[in-house]
Amino acid sequence: MANTIGSIFRLTSFGESHGPAMGGIIDGMPAGIEVDLNEMQRVVDRRRPGQSQLVTQRAEADQVEILSGIFEGRTLGTPIGFVVRNKDVRSEDYDHLRDVYRPSHADYSWQAKYGLRDHRGGGRASARETVSRVVAGALAMQVLEHLGIQVLAYTTQIGDVKLQPGSPLDWKQTWSNAVRCPDATTAQRMARAVDEARAQGDTLGGMVCCAVMGVPAGLGEPVFNKLNAALAGAMMSIPAAKSFDMGAGRMLASMRGSETLDTMHAVDGGLVYEHNYSGGIQGGISNGNNIFMEIGFKPVATLMRDIDTIDMQGNPVTIHPHGRHDVCVVPRAVPVVQAMAAMVVLDHYLLAKTNHL
Amino acid sequence: MANTIGSIFRLTSFGESHGPAMGGIIDGMPAGIEVDLNEMQRVVDRRRPGQSQLVTQRAEADQVEILSGIFEGRTLGTPIGFVVRNKDVRSEDYDHLRDVYRPSHADYSWQAKYGLRDHRGGGRASARETVSRVVAGALAMQVLEHLGIQVLAYTTQIGDVKLQPGSPLDWKQTWSNAVRCPDATTAQRMARAVDEARAQGDTLGGMVCCAVMGVPAGLGEPVFNKLNAALAGAMMSIPAAKSFDMGAGRMLASMRGSETLDTMHAVDGGLVYEHNYSGGIQGGISNGNNIFMEIGFKPVATLMRDIDTIDMQGNPVTIHPHGRHDVCVVPRAVPVVQAMAAMVVLDHYLLAKTNHL
Amino acid sequence: MANTIGSIFRLTSFGESHGPAMGGIIDGMPAGIEVDLNEMQRVVDRRRPGQSQLVTQRAEADQVEILSGIFEGRTLGTPIGFVVRNKDVRSEDYDHLRDVYRPSHADYSWQAKYGLRDHRGGGRASARETVSRVVAGALAMQVLEHLGIQVLAYTTQIGDVKLQPGSPLDWKQTWSNAVRCPDATTAQRMARAVDEARAQGDTLGGMVCCAVMGVPAGLGEPVFNKLNAALAGAMMSIPAAKSFDMGAGRMLASMRGSETLDTMHAVDGGLVYEHNYSGGIQGGISNGNNIFMEIGFKPVATLMRDIDTIDMQGNPVTIHPHGRHDVCVVPRAVPVVQAMAAMVVLDHYLLAKTNHL
Amino acid sequence: MANTIGSIFRLTSFGESHGPAMGGIIDGMPAGIEVDLNEMQRVVDRRRPGQSQLVTQRAEADQVEILSGIFEGRTLGTPIGFVVRNKDVRSEDYDHLRDVYRPSHADYSWQAKYGLRDHRGGGRASARETVSRVVAGALAMQVLEHLGIQVLAYTTQIGDVKLQPGSPLDWKQTWSNAVRCPDATTAQRMARAVDEARAQGDTLGGMVCCAVMGVPAGLGEPVFNKLNAALAGAMMSIPAAKSFDMGAGRMLASMRGSETLDTMHAVDGGLVYEHNYSGGIQGGISNGNNIFMEIGFKPVATLMRDIDTIDMQGNPVTIHPHGRHDVCVVPRAVPVVQAMAAMVVLDHYLLAKTNHL
Repeated sequence: MANTIGSIFRLTSFGESHGPAMGGIIDGMPAGIEVDLNEMQRVVDRRRPGQSQLVTQRAEADQVEILSGIFEGRTLGTPIGFVVRNKDVRSEDYDHLRDVYRPSHADYSWQAKYGLRDHRGGGRASARETVSRVVAGALAMQVLEHLGIQVLAYTTQIGDVKLQPGSPLDWKQTWSNAVRCPDATTAQRMARAVDEARAQGDTLGGMVCCAVMGVPAGLGEPVFNKLNAALAGAMMSIPAAKSFDMGAGRMLASMRGSETLDTMHAVDGGLVYEHNYSGGIQGGISNGNNIFMEIGFKPVATLMRDIDTIDMQGNPVTIHPHGRHDVCVVPRAVPVVQAMAAMVVLDHYLLAKTNHL
Repeated sequence: MANTIGSIFRLTSFGESHGPAMGGIIDGMPAGIEVDLNEMQRVVDRRRPGQSQLVTQRAEADQVEILSGIFEGRTLGTPIGFVVRNKDVRSEDYDHLRDVYRPSHADYSWQAKYGLRDHRGGGRASARETVSRVVAGALAMQVLEHLGIQVLAYTTQIGDVKLQPGSPLDWKQTWSNAVRCPDATTAQRMARAVDEARAQGDTLGGMVCCAVMGVPAGLGEPVFNKLNAALAGAMMSIPAAKSFDMGAGRMLASMRGSETLDTMHAVDGGLVYEHNYSGGIQGGISNGNNIFMEIGFKPVATLMRDIDTIDMQGNPVTIHPHGRHDVCVVPRAVPVVQAMAAMVVLDHYLLAKTNHL
Repeated sequence: MANTIGSIFRLTSFGESHGPAMGGIIDGMPAGIEVDLNEMQRVVDRRRPGQSQLVTQRAEADQVEILSGIFEGRTLGTPIGFVVRNKDVRSEDYDHLRDVYRPSHADYSWQAKYGLRDHRGGGRASARETVSRVVAGALAMQVLEHLGIQVLAYTTQIGDVKLQPGSPLDWKQTWSNAVRCPDATTAQRMARAVDEARAQGDTLGGMVCCAVMGVPAGLGEPVFNKLNAALAGAMMSIPAAKSFDMGAGRMLASMRGSETLDTMHAVDGGLVYEHNYSGGIQGGISNGNNIFMEIGFKPVATLMRDIDTIDMQGNPVTIHPHGRHDVCVVPRAVPVVQAMAAMVVLDHYLLAKTNHL
Repeated sequence: MANTIGSIFRLTSFGESHGPAMGGIIDGMPAGIEVDLNEMQRVVDRRRPGQSQLVTQRAEADQVEILSGIFEGRTLGTPIGFVVRNKDVRSEDYDHLRDVYRPSHADYSWQAKYGLRDHRGGGRASARETVSRVVAGALAMQVLEHLGIQVLAYTTQIGDVKLQPGSPLDWKQTWSNAVRCPDATTAQRMARAVDEARAQGDTLGGMVCCAVMGVPAGLGEPVFNKLNAALAGAMMSIPAAKSFDMGAGRMLASMRGSETLDTMHAVDGGLVYEHNYSGGIQGGISNGNNIFMEIGFKPVATLMRDIDTIDMQGNPVTIHPHGRHDVCVVPRAVPVVQAMAAMVVLDHYLLAKTNHL
């Protein structure tokens, strides 16, 4: 539950930011699938820190070591254990935070829950845990490819710079620029916004869009494990995620029913939809159209400025963070969003196999 | 999974809209709790159809029959089985839909998944299933009251009529007007908007806000079963839900970190927060502040007009719905949102008891 | 968890012995399966009380009411809710037990756990809850029949009367005699043993064998959800079950490896085994041979004699039970064992579908 | 499910016998518990191979590396990831088995399930996976000690040498002799029996008893997750386990009710039982008496002799195993049985905390 996600295809993860290693176990991987571990590593590298000026300068190779479940290049159907070592930890940077509750951080809530915490680099509450998600997601994507299913994720907003609807999208751009935006011009404006925020010791939030193409109709388990519910839960479990829109999302709240029908036509034995307001899911079950959703992320709470807060005894204190932090998590959240979508869709693909004898 | 929600406090539900009954089993209810079944019924009545002109005219008493788990007025700790009979079914109203896929409905996705469906009144895909959620939520709320936890839900938008920030909120209003808005003036404007849409054979969507007060710090199970992730998954499983915002939600994506800190002060041994942008949850764990979120609902897809679509053979057909339908689900979604929040918070309260010996 | 069994094909049950009803929800039933509800009722009738002198005289029709999940004779893939009313309750027979802890009963352990209990007829601890298991098992057996899988269960021992190895077994006998033994002569001796025990106000235990034929190789989920582990857990959850032997079971502990090899031969493209000591499961996974196991049941703890025990205040008391009780649970446990095996095998059949894309 | 056990305190494990490492993740560990990792390693060492002539000569240090979840000597409440490297693998010893199905092994059933397998040393089907169980069990035992709960396991039978009822038991003996029997004389006879079997290229099975002392009344979750059902499932998931007896077990099947009552007396505010036929559990819930059970293990299927079997094409072949194997698994199963009992009892202790507000 706490550290496991999925029903059939399941990831259980572990690791504190400054402990010996992050890692996880992928259970429920179908057997006999050829996997390309170099490709997996390339996907994991996309969320690696230190890749650009825009993100934390912690220098982690994030080399994934696979410990089980793959034999002679193919999955065995047994659990895939893996570890990613934490190497570039400067735990002394966090000594001044041992007894402090930072505002908008998990320090206080974590302490209230467990009665103790690993204060170094955020411990288990650090977004560093998402490396395990991307490992599992990268393997899930390789499985989905065999099914003709493709998962895209990309940045649509950083601070107040938005990717305009109708902009031509070039998917090759996504992973070649630092902000993970498929439009080069917008990407440059986003990068500048991050630069400016950093110069001011400030931080930014933003939005990530995710699209899943090629999903067959029939995935999703009503009534509580609907495909959209599973996606929402998965996305909102990502650190800093604050909003989730399925298809046209909250825009639909202001529209009339007559404006929002996803009218269907039968063409050549298949279905064609005039619109896709619903984002490819109806009644919690995929309808064969593209699935898309948007996730909103709050700005990073660690500012490079004096911050007024309290210590564990309730005394007012002023801290000045000097660990290494992202100015904006969005670029590194993009591969995480993609990974979560891949895991959820694969899990539901496998679940749907049990709907019939 | 499919029809069960929760880890410790769990609801498993069943029922098709025009079958003999809806119902469910509540497992994991703590033992020895006094329950007031009349109060439970009053809460269930709030989502009952036929209460106003604004909602479906199906006349269901929605009388809950409790079959187990309560003995001499107190919970036994054993599962609480319950049924709610379907009485006012006019299944013949749906005969013309047996072979039709309605646009923006679950007809096609359901058929693609299962290979058959109960077409009468939407079958299991009907929002009628939410009656079981409200039964369980009503009992959860009685348990939460013993803990000093209160769950509020109310309408903040219908169509383009919005409850303005800063409006004085009168909680007694919520359940006394037909649209479930705690501001009488706004409620009247919302009701008018629904009336107008109905007159045009059209439908509306809207937004529901939910607030949970009195939640102790420390609830939520990182990293995948965070309190916000569990809430998001629960809310997005409600029929027609399309967006979820935690705290200030997607608004945060456009703000700077320096504008969004939830600064803390220690006052009289407790904590006071200057703001609550995060909605009472940090790092997936409650921080003792009020929890709040907003859920967006799409307009009802059944319009009282000619609708062009296809039949199961792919032929174009025009249908004219004549079942009884809501013009706007939002008023009846309010008690469902409240119920889901209550179940999730109680589940996490019980889970948190296992964090320590 | 507590009241749910299974991963994909899942039964959640509810009900106290003297409450309004027993019942349950079957989730994960594959869609589109034709079901014969009369046949289901016939199977349920086999554990019905009052059928012979040998078992409790409580007169329950045990009529199953199906509330959902079946439409026009076929499963919808949605949850199947059902209730079985408790009609012949004589709760006053239990008034003298309200404050008493009976020896070898669940009275004290239940009270210690929950702090209260429904003392009437054993409440939730009564074997009456097994009616829900048989409903679900009866439907599971109908599904398994489509797969060519057949589940047998029969009495092999009552008291000290044992079905001798090598006795000719006549499956039609099983359900036609009161003790559920497939050998008429042994059945008569068993019935006499029960009669004698009843005459003395005493009770008997016994053994039930279960065999599953036609199970394909490949079912079972190592390492913790092995097929034998799932069967053991399911069988030991039956009231009064005290031992579980898989295949040759504990007999193997005294044998040498060279005496216990299940040697294989390939014949006509299939496998033939010389022996089946392992009971059709190797490494937790079915090997295509018949699965068999034996379950031991303790004697009923309610004797029709004076019984010395204590009340809730710790005072010594002597009680003389006068409710209606089985002299030996074994005959009525046979259909329960069969039901549990059917549910576990179907669940694992569906799980195994997820081992491959 | 497959590779996860437990509801709250959960172990997920991974690893093939000749892969890079075994390991696991312990989730649900209560926070703030002081742990002694040296003591944990000592417990793990008890199942280490190569300790005596009686068991496999594979030389593994089985050094446990803890990767997370423990900070400054105390549990964080976060998942505890760990790995145990496989170092002394001689995979070439298994080359001749690549295309062979050994009798009474998991080769064929595994192949039928997954379509491929790691044939080296049994792969995931090897009992080497139990090292992860003992790591988790060793930590669970440290937690249970804080609760005054103690778990014992010991050998009661090897081949036809049995520990006689009434033998004086010396718990210090258990871990100081090679067969894990608390009676030195019997231990010597058992060791001789193993020696003789080895000399003949044969193997032996046996029985392990497990007792849990100090368990408070009230643990166990009826009706499907009864404490005895959870124990049975856990024990039968251990490789080679073939029988499970709860308390007096199958012996009860032949006894009369009047002979088996666990009569209670109130003494000094506590309960004293005259007998403990039920093994400390009634109605699936602990009654405060000692819990005990016995598990039967089959002889090892790998004989050091010519064995007739078939290859993957169905051709008859004769193999002569030359890997390193246990002659009798019982001595190394003893710490595994102990570990499983500890995990189940701790899991139910935590679950029982949720029975009340």
